[in-house]
Amino acid sequence: MNLPLDTPAVLVDLDIAEANVRAFQSYCDSHGLQLRPHIKTHKLPRLAKFQVQQGAIGITCQKITEAEAMVANGDIHDVLLTYNILGREKVARLRALSDRVRLSVVADNITVAQGLSDGFADAATPLPVLVECNTGADRCGVATPAAAAALAQAIKDLPGLQFAGLMTYPPAGAATAVTTWLAEAKDLIETTDLTVDVISSGGSPDMWRAHEMPMATEYRIGTYIYNDRSLVTRGTCQWSDCALTVLATVVSTPTETRAVIDAGSKVLTSDLLGLDGFGHVLGHPDLTIDQLSEEHGRIVSDAPTGLSVGDQLRIVPNHACVVANMLEHVTLLRGDKILGPEPVAARGQVW
Amino acid sequence: MNLPLDTPAVLVDLDIAEANVRAFQSYCDSHGLQLRPHIKTHKLPRLAKFQVQQGAIGITCQKITEAEAMVANGDIHDVLLTYNILGREKVARLRALSDRVRLSVVADNITVAQGLSDGFADAATPLPVLVECNTGADRCGVATPAAAAALAQAIKDLPGLQFAGLMTYPPAGAATAVTTWLAEAKDLIETTDLTVDVISSGGSPDMWRAHEMPMATEYRIGTYIYNDRSLVTRGTCQWSDCALTVLATVVSTPTETRAVIDAGSKVLTSDLLGLDGFGHVLGHPDLTIDQLSEEHGRIVSDAPTGLSVGDQLRIVPNHACVVANMLEHVTLLRGDKILGPEPVAARGQVW
Repeated sequence: MNLPLDTPAVLVDLDIAEANVRAFQSYCDSHGLQLRPHIKTHKLPRLAKFQVQQGAIGITCQKITEAEAMVANGDIHDVLLTYNILGREKVARLRALSDRVRLSVVADNITVAQGLSDGFADAATPLPVLVECNTGADRCGVATPAAAAALAQAIKDLPGLQFAGLMTYPPAGAATAVTTWLAEAKDLIETTDLTVDVISSGGSPDMWRAHEMPMATEYRIGTYIYNDRSLVTRGTCQWSDCALTVLATVVSTPTETRAVIDAGSKVLTSDLLGLDGFGHVLGHPDLTIDQLSEEHGRIVSDAPTGLSVGDQLRIVPNHACVVANMLEHVTLLRGDKILGPEPVAARGQVW
Repeated sequence: MNLPLDTPAVLVDLDIAEANVRAFQSYCDSHGLQLRPHIKTHKLPRLAKFQVQQGAIGITCQKITEAEAMVANGDIHDVLLTYNILGREKVARLRALSDRVRLSVVADNITVAQGLSDGFADAATPLPVLVECNTGADRCGVATPAAAAALAQAIKDLPGLQFAGLMTYPPAGAATAVTTWLAEAKDLIETTDLTVDVISSGGSPDMWRAHEMPMATEYRIGTYIYNDRSLVTRGTCQWSDCALTVLATVVSTPTETRAVIDAGSKVLTSDLLGLDGFGHVLGHPDLTIDQLSEEHGRIVSDAPTGLSVGDQLRIVPNHACVVANMLEHVTLLRGDKILGPEPVAARGQVW
C-alpha cells in the first residue's frame, strides 16, 4: 500500500536509527571505547543530540557549518572537526565556534597548523589539534610515524595550539598494521615532553571489530545510524537495520521487464561504492536499478517486473550519507507512522 | 593566483554561458529549428530569461518546482515539462501553473494521461500533452509507433486534455532510425483526425547535428549552456567553452604524487558518464581526480603534482547539471571579475 507522501522522498525511520545508535553505543560501552559519531551522515541536530544522550562523548563534523548547526540546535558541547581547515575566514569561524563548545580539529601539514595558530594565537585557551595519520587509506594524513612526531612537536611549539593526539581513518581489515603504525608514532612522540592522550579511529565497515584495535581511545562512525546497501553487502548489518530509504513512484512501465521511477541521480546519487546498480528495492531482490538520469531511475529485471504505474517502492541506497544531503527535508517516521518533514541542516554550504 | 573566494565553490562564468547560448541559438535559427532549453542544468531564473531573450521559444523543465521558480522569477511564458506527472496534488500544482503560463506536459501511459485529465477536466483551456516516444534510449516512452498513435487518440478523448505532438530523447548518433520511428508514428496519427504539430527532440551530445533530423520542430537541450568534461570528451565543445567550474583548494599534499582537495562527492558528485576520474583540472592535464570521499577529492599523478597546500584549482566536472544542484549558491563571474553569489532555485525539492 502506498504511503500518503509525495515522491521522491527520503524517509528516516527513527525507531531503526535509534536502535542502531543504542546497539553500537552498547558495544562501545562494553569495550571501554568512547564513541564520537560523525554527523555528516544525517545532518540532523535532533539525532546528534540523541547520540550524545545515549552516551557519545561528543560529535565529529566534516565542515564548519555542520558543527555550527549542531551546536546551535543539537545541545552539543564537544566537537571534533576532522578536516584540514585552511583560510583566514574559516579559521575565524572556528575561533568563534571554539568560544561556544569544546572544539578540536586535525592537521596533517604545517601550513594548516600555522594558519590555525595565526587565528588562535591570542585565544584564552589553546585549540586542541590532533595529527591526522595515513595508516593505509591513502587519503589525507602524514605519511610516517616520524612525520607525525615532527608535526606534533611543531603544533606544540605554535602559539595558540595544543597537541591533542592522533587521528586516522584506517583501511578496512587492517587493525594490526594500523596499531603498529600508531604505536610507533605514540612512542616517538612520548619520548619528548608530549603525551598522546587521544587516539581517534573510525569507520563503519569495521565497526564491530573496533575492539581489535584497543589502543584507540575513541571511535568515529557515521553511516551506522542509517546503514545502507554498501554495509549490508559487507555483512555489517541487515536490510531491516537500514533506517534511511528513498520512497519512489513508478512513473512508467515501458516494457514488461523495464520500469522507470521518479528517483534519479539528484536523489539516489551516482555513488556506487563498488556495487552494481544504484540501490536495493526492498522486497524486490529481482529488480536492478541499472541506470540513473537526473530525475529518473531505470529498473530492469530478467523476468516481468510486476510493477504498475503509480506503485511506490522503497529503496535502500548504496550510500546513505550522500542521499541524506540531497533534499532540503527528510521525512521522519516510526514504522508505519509518518511524523513529518525535518530540515537537513547545513546542506549545500561552502564552508 | 588564488581568487578571493572560499572553497569549494561552483563558479559560473556568464561570459562563456552567454556565448554558448548565443552560438547554439544562432545554429538553430540558421536551420529553422525552434530551441527550448532545459533549465535543469542551471536552475537560475536569470539564465532562463536570457535564453528566451536570445530567441528560445520557451523552456523545458523536469520538475514542477523548477517550472514554478522560472515562471516566478524568469519572465517565462512557455514551459514544457518533460515528465510523467502523477498524483492528485502534483496535478493540482500543474493546474495552478497552467493559469500563469502556456504549459504543456508529456505522457507515455494511460494512467498518467487519466490523472492529468482528472485534474484538468473542468479547465477553461485543455492541457497540451505530448506523447513521449522511446526511439532507442530505452528510458521512458511508448515502445512502438502504434502505441504512440493509440495514446495520442486516448489523450484526445480524455476531458481537459489536448494531443499536442510527439516528444523523444533520442539515442546519440541515430538520427535516421529516430526519424523513421517518428515518421511512422506521425503517419499513423495523422490517418485519424489528429495532426502532429510538434515533434520535440533533444540532447547535448548531438547538438550540432540536430539539423540531421529535420522533422523535429523543436530541440531541447540543457548542458550546452555550461558544457562539461563529458561534452569536451565527445568533441562537442572545448575546455574554453566550459562555463561551470568547481573552485577547490589543496588542503593536503601527503606525498609528492598525491594531493587532496576540499571538493568531494558532495560537490563534484560521483557521476562518471563513462569517464575515468571525477573531473578535469584546468591547466593540469597530468593530474587525475581518482577518488572522492564526501568532502575530499584525491588527486594523483605519475609525476610530482607540483601542488602546495593552499593552491586553488579549477575543475571542469564530468557532468555540469548535477554539480550545479549541489550548493545553495553558485558564484557568478565574468572572466576575472567576480560578480557574487546567485541562489540556485528549486534545488532539493520533492516536487
